Amino acid sequence: MSQPPPPGDRPLFDAMTEWLRAEGDCADVVMSSRVRLARNLAGHPFCTRSARRDRLLTLEACRDCVLRAGLADRFVWCDVHDASPLERMMLVERHLISKQLSKGRTLIHGGGEDPRGVAIALPDERLSIMVNEEDHLRIQVIRSGLALGAAWRQIDEVDDRIEAGVDYAFSPRFGYLTACPTNVGTGLRMSVMLHLPGLRLMRELEKVKRAAADMGLAVRGFYGEGSDAVGDFFQLSNQTTLGRSEAQILADMEQKVVPPIVEYERRSRRDLLQSRRVGLEDQIMRAWGMLCNARLLATEEAMQALSLVRLGVLLSIIQDRTGRALDVRLVNQLTLLVQSAHLQRAVGRELDQEQRKVARATFIRTRLAAIAGA
Amino acid sequence: MSQPPPPGDRPLFDAMTEWLRAEGDCADVVMSSRVRLARNLAGHPFCTRSARRDRLLTLEACRDCVLRAGLADRFVWCDVHDASPLERMMLVERHLISKQLSKGRTLIHGGGEDPRGVAIALPDERLSIMVNEEDHLRIQVIRSGLALGAAWRQIDEVDDRIEAGVDYAFSPRFGYLTACPTNVGTGLRMSVMLHLPGLRLMRELEKVKRAAADMGLAVRGFYGEGSDAVGDFFQLSNQTTLGRSEAQILADMEQKVVPPIVEYERRSRRDLLQSRRVGLEDQIMRAWGMLCNARLLATEEAMQALSLVRLGVLLSIIQDRTGRALDVRLVNQLTLLVQSAHLQRAVGRELDQEQRKVARATFIRTRLAAIAGA
Repeated sequence: MSQPPPPGDRPLFDAMTEWLRAEGDCADVVMSSRVRLARNLAGHPFCTRSARRDRLLTLEACRDCVLRAGLADRFVWCDVHDASPLERMMLVERHLISKQLSKGRTLIHGGGEDPRGVAIALPDERLSIMVNEEDHLRIQVIRSGLALGAAWRQIDEVDDRIEAGVDYAFSPRFGYLTACPTNVGTGLRMSVMLHLPGLRLMRELEKVKRAAADMGLAVRGFYGEGSDAVGDFFQLSNQTTLGRSEAQILADMEQKVVPPIVEYERRSRRDLLQSRRVGLEDQIMRAWGMLCNARLLATEEAMQALSLVRLGVLLSIIQDRTGRALDVRLVNQLTLLVQSAHLQRAVGRELDQEQRKVARATFIRTRLAAIAGA
Repeated sequence: MSQPPPPGDRPLFDAMTEWLRAEGDCADVVMSSRVRLARNLAGHPFCTRSARRDRLLTLEACRDCVLRAGLADRFVWCDVHDASPLERMMLVERHLISKQLSKGRTLIHGGGEDPRGVAIALPDERLSIMVNEEDHLRIQVIRSGLALGAAWRQIDEVDDRIEAGVDYAFSPRFGYLTACPTNVGTGLRMSVMLHLPGLRLMRELEKVKRAAADMGLAVRGFYGEGSDAVGDFFQLSNQTTLGRSEAQILADMEQKVVPPIVEYERRSRRDLLQSRRVGLEDQIMRAWGMLCNARLLATEEAMQALSLVRLGVLLSIIQDRTGRALDVRLVNQLTLLVQSAHLQRAVGRELDQEQRKVARATFIRTRLAAIAGA
């Protein structure tokens, strides 16, 4: 395999990432489905307990086996410890690495930046593999819409191919061993990114969140663990990895958990259209008007308005000047492109917070004018 | 003189009223100048103490002398007690009658609606004369911009002409006698309607209001006594009518009081442009975006946004699609046309509060689209 291109390379950051495609089942409510596996190499100490030298060896072993496993036609490898702050932030914004991997951790032994990296499959970024995060390997597959089954089949195959080249840390009694006991067993987490503006507007969101918690699910924000819910986007994920098979987890999520929430959100949207149509149109069109006119926009405000605009496009409340439906993918894309690092890359230079607000407003205004005028 | 047309007649309510013309000195800050005289007929009891029969006689006497005085080429007479609720509200919104005259007062003797009326000079509505409000005659002249001197000269002439046909209640010691002692003497009140968005945005408004109060001036809202300040519009008026000549009151208002406030507001606008330009543009364009997109608009919200849009037009921050300046008169006009009665007349039927919000949003959106697309 030839030398992979660096991460600042256009093919990576200009790609329409898989989770913005608005394709697949239930794409009106389910932005994306994500499956990840936590794996560790046998004979290598866990990242949480290893010295720098150990981690370097682990990094090399993982990188080699990942890049040699023939997982994708084009694979980008990024040494996160060598990446610029902007590149790290972009990888986080694209959901390709965790905040934790972007920051690194304090080394117990040895100095310097914690050696770690990520492999990303192009052109769609469906598959990515973090190395030396909490576990040696964190394999992730993201698919647009509700597609946990397809994601699971892909990740299962990826897992097999990697395992063909290395020994995983595995216990016949506990299953796959992981740095944190909450991942022991399958090492599997399945999650969906939901867009639930209807439930928020109908004030039913808390009820759904409580019901999800009662089913042992975690509800998180747009950027996962520890992030706030912005713009009515919520990540819902299973918590249990021990004592239940992958098939059981998949069946639960894809058949029992997600469809009722999707139906509930759709019903909220229908109710809003039927019983509060003018109020709904008012909120959606004000959000559109703000995005098309503001000269200063903070991320959260932009995301909240984009959420309403997304709803407005899906419900045909927002149309272009000729009365045609807008492409919801363009709105999805904006939810990524307005994030700070992507914004700075679009502008071509580093910006302070105030400058970002100006640039964000300009960027959105220009894009929406182009979309609406089409 | 031929029978005057009824007040629902198009020439009256479709006129571009004088106070919206945006002409004259300081029209960027001073919307309009208003002078009014309180007068009573000798030998007729004050309205506050009269029976219905007395008031009918007073009404007839006043009406006759007003309509015969040759005050204008075209004069509309309206019996307010016979007018519909919508017409009364429209007269209030046009600043042609007071809320008090629109409502009438409880009669001490006799039943039925309190007999009262108003004479309005067309086509510009500069001159209007209320009959049987607190005083028998309340003569008002309104001029666009800072034009208290011109207004004063006009009202002085009107006063003379009316006096040629009737005996005013006058005391050599106190001057003109009025129903309320605060008006005794000259019976004169001078006021200006100011638009002070710059001072509000620079948080200097309270200072100016305190200074005005210290000079013995009253600061009121868009609809005078007891009304709230909406959309940064403030009515500033002299309080003293006794012991000072008309010339002194005029000189004070037009030379000492108003010009410094105008200068202060202009400086605030310059400061905003220089030191907070982006923030200012942001607020103005958001207001514009809201007005162009909202589907529900309450009066106050609309007025507040129109105030910012007016500022934006004056500062050339808002332009039409071809980059040309907008006509500030069209914005001035909207501040009148979005009021409830005018709105209902435009729609052609009575509306409840929720329907008015919808109609207001539709009306403004359509107008602004026409203005911006011009």
